[in-house]
Amino acid sequence: MSSRTHLSSGSPTQFLEAKGGERYAYRRFGSGPGLPLLLLQHFTGTLDNWDPALTDALAGERELMLFDNAGVGRSSGTVPPTVAGMAQHVITFLDGVGVKMCDVLGFSLGGMIAQHMVLDRPTIFRRVILVGTAPRGGEDIMHLEKPSLAKFLQDPKLQGYAVLGGLFFAPTESSQAAGQAFIARIAQRTEDLDPPSGPGVAAAQMAAFREWEQYTGERFASLRTIRQPTLVVNGVHDEMIPVANSYRLAENLPNAMLLIYPDSGHGSLFQFHESFTRQATAFLASDSLFAAY
Amino acid sequence: MSSRTHLSSGSPTQFLEAKGGERYAYRRFGSGPGLPLLLLQHFTGTLDNWDPALTDALAGERELMLFDNAGVGRSSGTVPPTVAGMAQHVITFLDGVGVKMCDVLGFSLGGMIAQHMVLDRPTIFRRVILVGTAPRGGEDIMHLEKPSLAKFLQDPKLQGYAVLGGLFFAPTESSQAAGQAFIARIAQRTEDLDPPSGPGVAAAQMAAFREWEQYTGERFASLRTIRQPTLVVNGVHDEMIPVANSYRLAENLPNAMLLIYPDSGHGSLFQFHESFTRQATAFLASDSLFAAY
Repeated sequence: MSSRTHLSSGSPTQFLEAKGGERYAYRRFGSGPGLPLLLLQHFTGTLDNWDPALTDALAGERELMLFDNAGVGRSSGTVPPTVAGMAQHVITFLDGVGVKMCDVLGFSLGGMIAQHMVLDRPTIFRRVILVGTAPRGGEDIMHLEKPSLAKFLQDPKLQGYAVLGGLFFAPTESSQAAGQAFIARIAQRTEDLDPPSGPGVAAAQMAAFREWEQYTGERFASLRTIRQPTLVVNGVHDEMIPVANSYRLAENLPNAMLLIYPDSGHGSLFQFHESFTRQATAFLASDSLFAAY
Repeated sequence: MSSRTHLSSGSPTQFLEAKGGERYAYRRFGSGPGLPLLLLQHFTGTLDNWDPALTDALAGERELMLFDNAGVGRSSGTVPPTVAGMAQHVITFLDGVGVKMCDVLGFSLGGMIAQHMVLDRPTIFRRVILVGTAPRGGEDIMHLEKPSLAKFLQDPKLQGYAVLGGLFFAPTESSQAAGQAFIARIAQRTEDLDPPSGPGVAAAQMAAFREWEQYTGERFASLRTIRQPTLVVNGVHDEMIPVANSYRLAENLPNAMLLIYPDSGHGSLFQFHESFTRQATAFLASDSLFAAY
């Protein structure tokens, strides 16, 4: 495991001067027979927020691409206030590095960007993994003012990564222990770090969530045009983007498997990283046009 | 595959004279390192309704036990009008054949019986798979008078197994094709058959569904006492026992994974038998106290 652990904790940050004028920060590591896998990050998350237990396991069979959207981490520019704007930056990045088709794992905000991208440019993704996310028109998306979330954000004892133990994990002993282990893993990387996201990033991304809750026309109709095999994953006790949003994704995406973990919240993929990477690896290894794996 | 296909299509029906005075029909076949797996059947289903593609794949790693409850197929007695009564017959059968602990796959009605059994006698099952089923107090359970189901049951062209193509599969070309393949597979066995279930079986089982929709006290509270690792599976377009019932199971069972298939109905396990048996095999192979696999 030690050489694999090295993969993400030691991968250097690279920079792309892209056509639109931005300079994007990213990391690429791993190799294998699979298509590259693009990882799109959560609210305020940077390159450093990816759990190495997850990325190293996935990097054994393919190249991974971690990406800072505009205005996040060491990427230049400003954070767009819409998911559409963020999706455009990812497309510009992929065009810049010359990736015509890849797989994608979008977590939370990243899952919304992935949905938007696959609608914008249907050929860009082969297989899609959507974790802890919501469709456009979803419900109760990232309302940090809710008591169940505000109590962690307003707790002065929870500084830095520590707040993620409350936000991403369920209030059980087993989930909280998994949260502490997750926090220890993402703290392993100590050099070549992104700056943490400040209030400007948070405000623009929050505006994007509010816009994403709006819809016109028939609710969820655009999902029905997505043909990509999709794996939808969530923790059953997700307070940030409740599991009902994952149900709506699975009910309206015509080709999506739904996998829900018990005893877990928004960070189910980190809590159950062994199971999640096993399931994701099996899903991505399939060449079928159908999602079942 | 031919020797495996032989497993269920050629397995002889056996009979147990049990303590309570009933004579139960059952089949046992398969072998391997796993605990025996008990299969509990759906509304009006007999030993002959198990898909050999599913049972033969599962029988490669463990012994399977197919069982006719009292009054069904060639088992003696009358069909109890409650899930509790059916569960008691299964416990009597397991005691009679000397199985103290096993895994269980309960489909539809069989999944309700499995839930009741694990509450009655918590040591009886190690791991539990619940497919296309509902908790006590679930909603819209087997209302065959609904237009979406009645249209198949009242269609004179759909005789015998053919009606299952409408009831168990979704109204898409791909799901209907899977339905025809399923019907062809269960028709492979042509000797040592159970008699089809008549209206008396159907009426008593339907009474059991109506009773299962009732609850007293806090809804779903009993589920929270079930500690067994559980895998809950359904097709997203199940019209017989809608997928919301699977959501409620996953939300209230403290240790359950939820797996939902696209483009499928009540018979998702047969439509996606390769995926289902792969997932079920991985789930059953785990020795963890936790459901994630």
